[in-house]
Formats: sequence, C-alpha cells, structure tokens
Amino acid sequence: MHYTTIDWQLDDGLLTLTLNRPEQLNAFTVEMANELVHAFERASLDDAVRVVLVTGAGRAFCAGMDLSRPGNVFGLDESQTPTLDDMHGRLEDPAIFDGVRDTGGRVTLAIHACRKPVVGAINGAAVGIGATMTLAMDFRLASEKARIGFVFGRLGIVPEACSSWFLPRIVGLQQALEWVYTGDIFDAEEARRGGLVRSVHAADSLLDDARTFARRLVAGRSPVATAFARQMLYRNSAQPHPLEAHRIDSLAMFYTSVGDGKEGVAAFREKRDAQFSGKASQMPAFYEQWLNGDSA
Amino acid sequence: MHYTTIDWQLDDGLLTLTLNRPEQLNAFTVEMANELVHAFERASLDDAVRVVLVTGAGRAFCAGMDLSRPGNVFGLDESQTPTLDDMHGRLEDPAIFDGVRDTGGRVTLAIHACRKPVVGAINGAAVGIGATMTLAMDFRLASEKARIGFVFGRLGIVPEACSSWFLPRIVGLQQALEWVYTGDIFDAEEARRGGLVRSVHAADSLLDDARTFARRLVAGRSPVATAFARQMLYRNSAQPHPLEAHRIDSLAMFYTSVGDGKEGVAAFREKRDAQFSGKASQMPAFYEQWLNGDSA
Amino acid sequence: MHYTTIDWQLDDGLLTLTLNRPEQLNAFTVEMANELVHAFERASLDDAVRVVLVTGAGRAFCAGMDLSRPGNVFGLDESQTPTLDDMHGRLEDPAIFDGVRDTGGRVTLAIHACRKPVVGAINGAAVGIGATMTLAMDFRLASEKARIGFVFGRLGIVPEACSSWFLPRIVGLQQALEWVYTGDIFDAEEARRGGLVRSVHAADSLLDDARTFARRLVAGRSPVATAFARQMLYRNSAQPHPLEAHRIDSLAMFYTSVGDGKEGVAAFREKRDAQFSGKASQMPAFYEQWLNGDSA
Repeated sequence: MHYTTIDWQLDDGLLTLTLNRPEQLNAFTVEMANELVHAFERASLDDAVRVVLVTGAGRAFCAGMDLSRPGNVFGLDESQTPTLDDMHGRLEDPAIFDGVRDTGGRVTLAIHACRKPVVGAINGAAVGIGATMTLAMDFRLASEKARIGFVFGRLGIVPEACSSWFLPRIVGLQQALEWVYTGDIFDAEEARRGGLVRSVHAADSLLDDARTFARRLVAGRSPVATAFARQMLYRNSAQPHPLEAHRIDSLAMFYTSVGDGKEGVAAFREKRDAQFSGKASQMPAFYEQWLNGDSA
Repeated sequence: MHYTTIDWQLDDGLLTLTLNRPEQLNAFTVEMANELVHAFERASLDDAVRVVLVTGAGRAFCAGMDLSRPGNVFGLDESQTPTLDDMHGRLEDPAIFDGVRDTGGRVTLAIHACRKPVVGAINGAAVGIGATMTLAMDFRLASEKARIGFVFGRLGIVPEACSSWFLPRIVGLQQALEWVYTGDIFDAEEARRGGLVRSVHAADSLLDDARTFARRLVAGRSPVATAFARQMLYRNSAQPHPLEAHRIDSLAMFYTSVGDGKEGVAAFREKRDAQFSGKASQMPAFYEQWLNGDSA
Repeated sequence: MHYTTIDWQLDDGLLTLTLNRPEQLNAFTVEMANELVHAFERASLDDAVRVVLVTGAGRAFCAGMDLSRPGNVFGLDESQTPTLDDMHGRLEDPAIFDGVRDTGGRVTLAIHACRKPVVGAINGAAVGIGATMTLAMDFRLASEKARIGFVFGRLGIVPEACSSWFLPRIVGLQQALEWVYTGDIFDAEEARRGGLVRSVHAADSLLDDARTFARRLVAGRSPVATAFARQMLYRNSAQPHPLEAHRIDSLAMFYTSVGDGKEGVAAFREKRDAQFSGKASQMPAFYEQWLNGDSA
C-alpha cells in the first residue's frame, strides 16, 4: 500500500511512522486515519517490525482534526440517529462505520491491538486528536518544544479516540479532568509532571533519544513474549479480579515456556545471548480467543 | 426547597454549596445527606448552574458523622439482616433505603451523577465522611489549615461513601491502603504529595482561588460537552476494554457535532468566541440509557 | 505444618514470614509456593495474626524461580494443550492445578485473599517472581540495597503472578510497561520514584522500620474492620461503577456498626481506648458470598 499522509520507514526492526502533512501541521484527515489503521495492522503482523515509533514531519506532531475540510471533521451523516444498540450490533455496518464511528477511535483501537511496543515522539504541537492518539501508545517522549492540549471542550465537542479510557489510567482522574475541562494547551514540562510524558528531550535530540529508547525495549527479547506482555498489562489490569489475570498468565506462561522460554532459560544458564525463534505473527489460538472475548 | 444544614448560593453560573453547621464543625447528619442529594440533583438539572463548589462554614470543612445523635450514626435497623440480594434488588425499598443504605454513599452517588464539574474547597478539618465525600468531587483544593483523615478503622467501622471505588483511582492503591489502615489525620501538604489534593492555598485565599479555578473550567464551554466529558472520564475509564469508550465517544461526538460542535468549529474558524446554545438539562436519549446500563 | 522453605515467626500479632533458602538467594520453588499459600491461608484465619511481614533470609529477598531444578521452572506437562475453557472450568482439576497453573499466581492470589494487611520488606534482590510476589502485598518497603527486576522478557517468558493486574494499579501504565518490556534491574530509589516502593531504608534498619510500620497499621484497630477495608479497596475499586461499592459499603457498615463499631463509637465518645472483640476468622455470611461472586 502506498501511503499519502504518513511515511513508513523500517530500519532494522524499528518502524518509524511519520505523520506527513507538514504544510498542514500534520492535521488529521479520514485518509490519515485509514492509513494509520492499515499501518498498525500491518506492523502488528509483520515480523520484520519489532517496535513502532510515531512522530510528525516538520514542526508539529499533529495539530488536530483538519477543520478546513468539512468532510473530515466528523464524517457523520446527519440524517442518522444512531443508538447505543447500533454501536453494539452494527459497528462494522458501512452506515455506522463511515457515518458514525469516531475516526480517531478507529486509530487508537488499532494501536491498542498492536503486537509491538509503540513509542510516541512528540516533536511539537499535539492538539485534539494529535494529543489523544498518543494515549494509546505505550510511551510519550516529548521535545521541550511540545505543546499538548485536549481542546475538545473549546469546540463544543467531546474527548474522543478512547481517550477517556486511557487518560485516567495514565495520569489519574484528577489531572485528567483538569486537562479535559479546561482544554488548556500545556508544555512538555507540565506534561511530565502530570505523568503524561515519560521524559522531555532537547528538540534536536528527541528522535535519536526516542529511537535508542525504542530499541532498548525489544533488543534480545522474544517477540512472542513482548506481544503477550503488552496485551496482558492493558487488559488484565482492567479486569475486576486478579483471577482473570491468573488464567491468562498460566496459558501464556505455558505457551512461552514450551517456546521461546526454553531457549531463554537455556541461554541464561549457559551465560550466552538467547536466539529466539518465536514470531509475533504466529500467536497461539487462545490469544485471539482471549482478545476477542475481552473486547466483546 | 429550604435547606437547614447547607447553604445554596448561585452567582453567575457558580454554585457555592456550603456545609452550614459551623457550631458542630459541619458534622454530617441524615438531614445534611438528604439536602446534599437534593442540591446536587437540582444543580445537575438547573441550566443556571455551570459549576459547583463545596466548602464548609467556619473553621471546619466537615468533622465527620455527628456522633452526638445516635439516629445519625448509621441509620440502621438492627432487627434487619440485610443480604447482598437485598442490595441488588431492593435498593429503593424504604426498609433498605432508610435502614441499611450508607447515607454518605447516597451523597457521593449524587455527586458522581452530576452533570456539572464539582470542586471541593477544603477549608479545615475533613474527617470521616468529611473526607470521603470529597472523593466524588472532581478536584480537591485545600487550605494550608486543612486536616484530612479516613478515620473509620479507629471507630471499628469501614470506609464508606464509595470511597473504596474513588480513592485508589485518585491516589493509587499503596497510598490508599496506608491512609485507610492507619486512620491517621494528615495535613494538606501530605495530601498534595500523595495526589489527593490538587493544590494547597493560604487559608484566606482558598475560596477566591477555588472560585477562579472553578470558573476557568466552564467559561466559554458547552454545558453539553462538559456533561458528557465528566461522565465519560469516570465511566469509560472503568470499563474492561476501550471499545466500550469508542461506542460512547462515537455517539457523543455525533450528538455534539450536530449541536454545539457546529457553533464551536464555526467560531474557531471565524476567530470569535463561541455562543453555545446546548443545555445540560436536555441531554440526548442515549445519555440516560448509557448511564443506567452502566450502573445496573 | 512444618515449613522447609519459609520461616513462620509470630510475635504479639506480627507474623514475620521469611523466605528461607539463603544459600540459593531464596530462589522460588514449587515447595515454597505451596508453603506460602498454606501460610497465608493460615494467617488469614488465625486470629492471633494481626499483620503479616514478608522478608528474605540473608542478602536476597528472592532471586526468582529456581532455574537449577527443571521441575520448578514452570511445572508444566508438555503433553497438554490447555485452553481458555480449561482455565475457567477446571482450575482445581489436578492436571490443570499441577501442570498448567502458574505457581506464582497461586501465591499472589493467596496473599490477595488474606484478611490481614501484608507488608513486604525487600532486603535485597527481588527478581522475577521475587518482584511480582510483592505486588500483591499492600506495601513495599525497601532496603537501599534492594534491586528489583521484572526480568521475564529476557528469558522469553511473560510476567506472571497476576502482576499485570497489580502493577499498573500501583505505578500506572506507562511505568509498568517500561519495567516489563526492558526487564531492567533497578534500584530502590528508582522504585520509590516510580511509585512501586513506599519508602527506602538503611539496610540495617529495614526490618525494624518495617515492623514498626506494620504494627502501626493494626494497633487498636478492629480486625473485622481491617479485613473488610482490605478487600473493599482492592475489589470495589475494580468495579465498573461506584454503585457496586455502595452495596458492599452499606452491608459492611451495617455489620460493623452492630459489632465493633458500637464499641468504637462508645470509646471515642468516652475518650478511652476501644476494646474490640470482633474476629477476622468470623466474618459475616455475605463476606464470602461477595468475594466468591467477585472472582467468579
């Protein structure tokens, strides 16, 4: 697939996805949403990709929805009156998919489902969907020039892209409520203090630092174990009781133990680097069954 | 309704609810519980109220349950042996409502359901229910003279008012467990360090600072978008999977986009202040359906 | 029961459980798992035990699974192909119990179910299961010599012992993901900054400090109220809506009010120390019904 709004660069396991409409400050469009969903699904299943880094071309990360194109704003069909039942039973129906579903949410759900760690390198303005899309990434590293804002309330609309699921889990309820109610634009240091951003970097070293960090997450690791760990941390922690985690832990430990775990333990005992052969594209059958049941 | 234990002051969109039994350090009674429930339900549906601020008259915020009146202590009927089934099927049955249900919890559930942001201005002692009632508020601003304590364990009773739902979400499990087990009284600075209190203020500027902060949350915002955002942050973040947030995001974005969002985007593009006409008293049909299903 | 891998020392209500294979850096074995489960179940029901402290003999807390004994590594039976259905319907079936279930998870579920507060005193290396077992404890106090690591990814296996349920609740998602992906070994100060460890202590005062802290959690408290508070904080906070907490709050307040609460309020009003007579071994009928339903 040829992308027109993003750039795909794969270098020795590290995929850099660059939001690539620099003239428009990488403003978000339906095309960009579709390309990001495609890219994350592709990255998830492509064993050459070990870790994903997302950044923006030019001086912005993503300045939000492209409001200059009415069709992009929300993609909705005003003749519809969608209901809760529609959202449970007809999510894939084209009328709902194209006319009602939040495009930002389709992107963050694709990021959430990805089998690889995802690092956001926020190089400049990250506003609206530019801010909320980073919440589904595992880490947010920011340039000292970053400016972040959950500005929806200023526009009379609501926070989207599943941000109400992610943000309180990352920064706690009190901080999440303040940023969302006020819609203020805040800087990288406030974002770090509030727990949103992992670390703040000089503008000209952000990308290098983020790539070093991203590689450190996966170097010498089993892609299968990493894919499991990512989904376990997000999903098991959202269950009402740890017993559900125990069920998944047991199966995942069983499967990795007869797989890459054998090599990992042998290498540890022999004091050598492990050579893992498992592939994230070939997860065991219960993996999909678990994830589908979990999101039903 | 004429209140006898609280004071209702509405000034240009900002409702100040003052716990008003200063001679008794605003100790909590069944009357106060009923009046607070009434006031929050009224504030929720009164479009003249944009934001709610709660504080205490005199030197205390609320010194806890009024133990001088036996009937207030727990309101229970010892001849009963309530069961889990009663609590699921008979919550509104007068025998359960008056004789078993935790009065503090009736208050925090009313705060939780409110369609307006709620700011607590903790001006002095906030102990027992005086501490736990603030947890359902979106923000806690404290005077340097504030003293806070989850003292239930010292009295042989349990933390109430849904505090076990709120506190770990605000301060994390490890801090929540320490404050609850010890029942210690701690000061505003410890509360801020632990993440309970947003900010600490000089005693004589707390109320002004809190009012300025409260107005900033709603000035120029859509009341409909704010009402949605409040419930989305609390409720979507408690779901097991972000897909549930996506369903609500999509509907809420759809409804706000054909409503206040149209004006918000137009005003943004025309570089003028938005004039929102939506009313929080008139939320779309799916809003109630969502909230009722969520709490079933 | 005579323990061979742990040491049980009960001193005036304070139970010290010491992981006791110092020559092997207290490496975890199936025997140790079974003894810990037994000890926590015993501590939970023994009214002479008010609070539990866990530490390690010698210079380590627990260096992880004992990889020198193949049978300990995962206890699995490779001829099996366990499924999600097995984990829901056959958890107690010996084939699943012994051959598939994660042994670390059996331990953390026993800690989680305990009716007494649990304090971890991390005196040295706490790696793998040595790190994850502490997550089910209410508090982690660390020696300045502690070294902690969620090293599973380095071995090609996954984080276990329900750690994916606990860790994000304690330190937030972003920090949890970093420690788990990297598998780095970090020191006590980083653990404290990240919110994992409550406090850092000089090596030679850790045990005294931890004992003083542990006693402070329960001195003069009702064992029944403490047992309720522990389960309420973990379980109510994991429910999708505070109404569920309100149901449990109401019942727990009802039962404690006609029990130890009566003495607690009387003592408070008479300005004397309370003499509680309730026993954690005799919780009301709805307690088990609640916990069983919760974990179903």
